[in-house]
This record gives sequence, structure tokens and C-alpha cells, in this order.
Amino acid sequence: MINKENLTQHISQQFNAELEEVRSHLLAMGGLVEKQVNDAVTALIDADSGLAQQVREIDDQINQMERNIDEECVRILARRQPAASDLRLIISVSKSVIDLERIGDEATKIAKRAIQLCEEGEAPRGYVEVRHIGDQVRKMVQEALDAFARFDADLALSVAQYDKTVDREYKTALRELVTYMMEDPRAISRVLSIIWVLRSLERIGDHARNIAELVIYLVRGTDVKHLGLARMKEEVQGPGKAD
Amino acid sequence: MINKENLTQHISQQFNAELEEVRSHLLAMGGLVEKQVNDAVTALIDADSGLAQQVREIDDQINQMERNIDEECVRILARRQPAASDLRLIISVSKSVIDLERIGDEATKIAKRAIQLCEEGEAPRGYVEVRHIGDQVRKMVQEALDAFARFDADLALSVAQYDKTVDREYKTALRELVTYMMEDPRAISRVLSIIWVLRSLERIGDHARNIAELVIYLVRGTDVKHLGLARMKEEVQGPGKAD
Repeated sequence: MINKENLTQHISQQFNAELEEVRSHLLAMGGLVEKQVNDAVTALIDADSGLAQQVREIDDQINQMERNIDEECVRILARRQPAASDLRLIISVSKSVIDLERIGDEATKIAKRAIQLCEEGEAPRGYVEVRHIGDQVRKMVQEALDAFARFDADLALSVAQYDKTVDREYKTALRELVTYMMEDPRAISRVLSIIWVLRSLERIGDHARNIAELVIYLVRGTDVKHLGLARMKEEVQGPGKAD
Repeated sequence: MINKENLTQHISQQFNAELEEVRSHLLAMGGLVEKQVNDAVTALIDADSGLAQQVREIDDQINQMERNIDEECVRILARRQPAASDLRLIISVSKSVIDLERIGDEATKIAKRAIQLCEEGEAPRGYVEVRHIGDQVRKMVQEALDAFARFDADLALSVAQYDKTVDREYKTALRELVTYMMEDPRAISRVLSIIWVLRSLERIGDHARNIAELVIYLVRGTDVKHLGLARMKEEVQGPGKAD
């Protein structure tokens, strides 16, 4: 027999299952995107055009995942009319997929440059920097997703903080490559390809930071976008806490 | 006297007013962003570092507008539990502000390059291309916003279609500038600044296209992201229609 209380409980269990499902779909998409970043960087460094081609082909899957998760979010908003933390979860998921999809796009751009460099011959400089910054931003993506999985605002904060390090190293690498171009103008086109790759990696770091900010919004209820790191830290750890 | 019918009508009028308000806030933000793009390009071409500085300062206002509109959308979702086209409106607005904010970011990047070129001396090439592509993408932003204001899916489609033209011209400009760098390596740093500006403009075109896709979603109810222009056209104009 279904009485009213049972029914309410039943609906709420089903609702929770839907929320859990959309979150797990986001994490699955995130896992694939993270792999794409890793594969694109590996393809570039190993001059593996087969792997680069694979990255390009998988991008369609990521786009499809974005569409599906978007649909799930709209369906939940329309049918379940979530409030409070449930609503924040749906908002965070529906914004995070945008960032994940763009990280996927940047991975595809890196893969295209990898293929181009396989044809033109390798660039004389910049691979160390690509590997290094590539590792950093891949880790940022991974930790932003971990933070989402565990509702961990502290981990999200550390991802956002780390973005500054990436930006600094990106700028240093860029200056060195521009200097090199002046010394060896014949390599301009190939060095420029490496510069585009570094730019894509730096953008991936920005998107990971965006996801981290959404995790803080989800867990703490405050929109920390554009607030700056000091204010963000206060929101996560409380005011006046030592570093 | 308030009876139940009056109350329902009263609530629905208030709800409509809120929807109208959030849409008008989006359009106001869009107008400011469009002005930022225009001013940034003008600052670069006229070597006007004062105007460039102004663009950088106004970016904070745009960020604040994004936060406010976001808050409005969350409030409406939580209190009004919109469905169907009302829900699509809120979703389109809350995604469009992300693109508008990023267009604002790109305008700020262009302004920074303008200031840098004021200090380093002007680049030997690329201003014609910056003006031309700058005009094109500013127009795309303007028309994407017009399409939003008028619920005009056909205009939105033409914005999305135009993005291909911008991408093509961007690539041509890039090739020419790379060739020029090889001929005059002393100009590499300054020409690279122009290349970054063109890249920002091309990104602005992408964001305008995203907004156009959201207008189509809003008006037609179909998510046309990643569908390709042919399918997008079918969704807007119906299948099998001649060009």
C-alpha cells in the first residue's frame, strides 16, 4: 500500500537518485576530458599523430555528453523545482559542463598543433615547458573534479590559488620563446605552434579554476567569481585565519 | 479586495515583470560589453592609452553585472519555479552572461595590448585587419543581442553563420602576419601583440555565436550547440528550405 508519506519518501528518493546521477555524469565527462588533455600533450611531445587524431575524434563524444547533461539539468529544473543546495548543485553542474567542454576544445586544438608539428618537423624549443605546464593544468582539472566529487571547498580553493602559478610560468615560457624566435626566424612558425599550445594549456587552467569556484559556490553558497583570492579564502576558511 | 483569481493574476504579472527585468539587465550588460569591444579596438588603432585604460577600469562593472544577473536568475528559479519558455529564458540569460563576461575579458586583453603598443611603438602591420575583423565581431555581438531582444531566431542564425567568415579572415590575417615576422624579426614582439588581438577578436566572434545559439534554443526550444550550421538552419527555417 502506498500512503502519502511513502509517496513523498519515494519521490524524494527518486529525486536524490537523479541528482546523484547527473553529478556522476559530470564526473564521467570530467574524467574523459582530463584524459583528452593528457593524451593531447603526450601526442605533441611524442610526435604521435595517431594519438592526436584519436583526441580529435573523441571530442564529439564530449560534446554529446555536454548536451545530455544539459538536458538532464533542464529536466530536473522543470520537473523537480529544486531549491537551496539542490538548486545550487544543478546550477554548478550546468555551468561546469561548459568549462569541461571548452577544456575539451583546447585539448583538440593542442592535438591539431601536434599533427601540424609532425608534418612540419619538431619545434626547436618549448617541449619542456609544455610538459611541465601540461602536468600542472591536468592536475588542476583532476583536483577540481575531485573537489566536486567530495564537496571539498578547501581543495577547490587550492586549485583556484594554483592558477596564479600556472599564469606566471606561462608568461615566463612565452617570453623565452619570443626571444628564441628573434634569434632563429626560420623557426617562427613552429615556435608559434608551441606558443598556441601553451596558450591552450593556460586557458585549461582558467577553466579548472572556474570549476573550482563553482564547487565553492556549491558547498558554501557564495558566488566567489571575480572576488579575488583573498576574499575567496575568507569565504572558504572563515575570516582572519592564518595561511 | 483580493480574491484568489486576482492574487494569481497579480503573482503572474509580477513574475512577468521579473522575467522582463532580467532580460533587460542582460541587454544593458550586452550594450556595455559591445561598447567595450568598440573602445578597445579604437584605443588600439588610435594608440589612445587613456581610452584603453578606461576599458580596463570598466571591466569591473561588467563583472558586477554578471554577478547581479546570476543572482536574479537563481532567485527566480528558487521562488518562481519557471517552466517551458520561462525556464528557457532563465537558462538562456544565465548562459549568455557567461559569454558576455568573457567578451568583456577579451576586450580588456585588447586594451592591455593597446597600452603595450603605445609603449613599444606601433606594429608595422595588422591594423587594417584589426579594424576590419573588429567591426565584424562587434556587429555580431550587436546582432546577437538584437536577436535576444526580439526573439529573432533568423537573425541569430545569420550571426552563427557569419562566424565562419570571421574565422576564415582571421586565419588569412594570421598567415600574413607570420610571413611578415619572418621577414622582419625585429618586429616579432609587436606583431605578436597584433596576433593576440586578432585572436581575442576571433574569440569574441565565437562568444557571439554562442549567444546566437542560445537565442535559437530560447525561441525554438532546441539545443543547436555542436549541431553544425546545416542542422541549425533546419531547426530555424524548417527542413529542405532553399537558401
